[in-house]
Amino acid sequence: MTSEDLYPVSRLAAAQEATAKAGLDALLLTPGPDLRYVSGYEALPLERLTCLVVPAHGESFMMVPRLELPAAQASPAARLGLDFVAWDETDDPYGVVASRLGSVAKVGLADRMWAMASLRFRAAMPGAEQVLAGSVLRELRMRKSPDEVAALREAGEAIDSVHRQVPRFLKAGRTEREVGKDIHDAILAAGHSTVDFVIVASGPNGASPHHEVSDRVIQAGEPVVVDIGGQLHNGYCSDSTRTYCVGEPPADFAAYYEVLRRAQDAACEAVRPGVTCESIDAAARTVIAEAGYGEHFIHRTGHGIGIETHEEPYIVAGNTEVMEPGFAFSVEPGIYLQGRHGARIEDILVCTQDGGERLNNTTRELVIV
Amino acid sequence: MTSEDLYPVSRLAAAQEATAKAGLDALLLTPGPDLRYVSGYEALPLERLTCLVVPAHGESFMMVPRLELPAAQASPAARLGLDFVAWDETDDPYGVVASRLGSVAKVGLADRMWAMASLRFRAAMPGAEQVLAGSVLRELRMRKSPDEVAALREAGEAIDSVHRQVPRFLKAGRTEREVGKDIHDAILAAGHSTVDFVIVASGPNGASPHHEVSDRVIQAGEPVVVDIGGQLHNGYCSDSTRTYCVGEPPADFAAYYEVLRRAQDAACEAVRPGVTCESIDAAARTVIAEAGYGEHFIHRTGHGIGIETHEEPYIVAGNTEVMEPGFAFSVEPGIYLQGRHGARIEDILVCTQDGGERLNNTTRELVIV
Repeated sequence: MTSEDLYPVSRLAAAQEATAKAGLDALLLTPGPDLRYVSGYEALPLERLTCLVVPAHGESFMMVPRLELPAAQASPAARLGLDFVAWDETDDPYGVVASRLGSVAKVGLADRMWAMASLRFRAAMPGAEQVLAGSVLRELRMRKSPDEVAALREAGEAIDSVHRQVPRFLKAGRTEREVGKDIHDAILAAGHSTVDFVIVASGPNGASPHHEVSDRVIQAGEPVVVDIGGQLHNGYCSDSTRTYCVGEPPADFAAYYEVLRRAQDAACEAVRPGVTCESIDAAARTVIAEAGYGEHFIHRTGHGIGIETHEEPYIVAGNTEVMEPGFAFSVEPGIYLQGRHGARIEDILVCTQDGGERLNNTTRELVIV
Repeated sequence: MTSEDLYPVSRLAAAQEATAKAGLDALLLTPGPDLRYVSGYEALPLERLTCLVVPAHGESFMMVPRLELPAAQASPAARLGLDFVAWDETDDPYGVVASRLGSVAKVGLADRMWAMASLRFRAAMPGAEQVLAGSVLRELRMRKSPDEVAALREAGEAIDSVHRQVPRFLKAGRTEREVGKDIHDAILAAGHSTVDFVIVASGPNGASPHHEVSDRVIQAGEPVVVDIGGQLHNGYCSDSTRTYCVGEPPADFAAYYEVLRRAQDAACEAVRPGVTCESIDAAARTVIAEAGYGEHFIHRTGHGIGIETHEEPYIVAGNTEVMEPGFAFSVEPGIYLQGRHGARIEDILVCTQDGGERLNNTTRELVIV
């Protein structure tokens, strides 16, 4: 897929229209996913201001440090016919943005804009209320185009190919870190440009959902949670968890693993247009609670995914957002027994007219290595 | 070096004292360099709030998502005797921080705090003026301890070992990307935990200071700017630039390369306690301007370095900050001829009582490969 497929020129106009509709005067998009989504430009986050300014009405422009100008002009943002405004080392780029925008009442800041920039924008535009650009862009970003779904499918296949190699890496006597290094290399070899996380959580570490890797030596008979993901060169992310066991699992583990598998299936089955995000969370949670493990499922069921690993919509109690075709997100319930072990099963799904399509397709049976 | 050497427990008290002295009521430190500097905790930047709250008076505490609690408790922050306040998926952690702090007039936000968090803190503490935590922490962070200088020296030696391998990687007929891949692997092999940037800018690309790599094939007779750096596991960063030539250089290049070398030397010689940052910039700029290349030196002379590649003090016109022992920063003038080629020479220096000590020590003569 080309930049034009994934970051179409039309998106700038869509962002501008959504900005006007939301009653904002402008979006201020510093480097990060919001800027990349609207322009295709993967700018480095640096202390010097780079900012795409999208006014509700009128011409958008991009402030860039002069020494980033060639990079900006060589980026997909050049397709947009924007005015690139280069600033020099001793200029005040915040003042330039303020004066070009004129009087504004409400501006949307990139969700990941650093305080270093947001506070300077506040000083340069003291009358403007600051809100999140995400309040506007979420409506676009949540609804993946067919090309974006294809990119997520490609990411899913890439990470699946890594999970298929995990049984070769996982052996009693190796440390989590050693296994993690092999997985890291396999993620890059599978076509990702970056490795975003590698969780290899053996035995009791499996009960900490965000454990990464450690020097702990994996023992025979231990379950191991492997949660891995990265970002493809095109910007779209992968994320999939499988739980393995090195030799025969403990009896109590095998019992709750089957509960977890049913819970994950139930949540995937619940996906269809028109249902709320929280109902998908509830579908998984009910199965786990009814089996008596409710207190051991200590996190939300999932998160949206696209050019960020975690983005909207969140699959969590209280989120009444209604599913639409094109929503893409994880379904990843877990059961964690403190001090003993844990398990999690995670697939990325996309909502289609007919229900949820899983973009991860390695076996969800317990793999004994 | 241990965490205790580089991130001493005493730093929390120093940060608290500086906060009180600056007239702030509290620092709010979300994941990033400010949090790591004060606590040693290298937390993942995520949408769920992790925040070290350092009040001017009273007990500091750390808000953490419940599923990050094991990671936070296993981090160097556990040495600080802090209260870890875990929050659950449907809690409002911003409200909890506000209510624990009580009435506050002025808070310092981590310089890299995402708007996603800063705007929620604003809503939770509508009466509090927000300023940058950097306005307080810069006074600590700029003055490197002997252990920090040792860590930067280690980083310098690591990146020097990579530059020594560059002549083996650089050959006519290879692409910048191929050379960059070899350098990337060498940076990791030299003991860095991450590669922060790899610039391989051949021929005309050398005239773009922030060019990264491309599929351009390097030609015989071309100068190549190689600017590389990464972060050691202990958090401290490396950054060094050398310019190479694949075969004999063009005559006009050889002429200005010598000017550049003299300019870089002049700036390094200018370093000593008591001089301003801008005077070091001027020392390099004067040599280049007097040789007639002033308009081709289009960026500041340098930036501070520590647990960020770019931090204070900046070596730039207008910065009247006065040098002190322990300041660490780059000296990296460049000359760029649009459409033709460019050159840059960069060392990291630390200011000592006796002047500047260079932490990069590979040859600054033009290396012909």
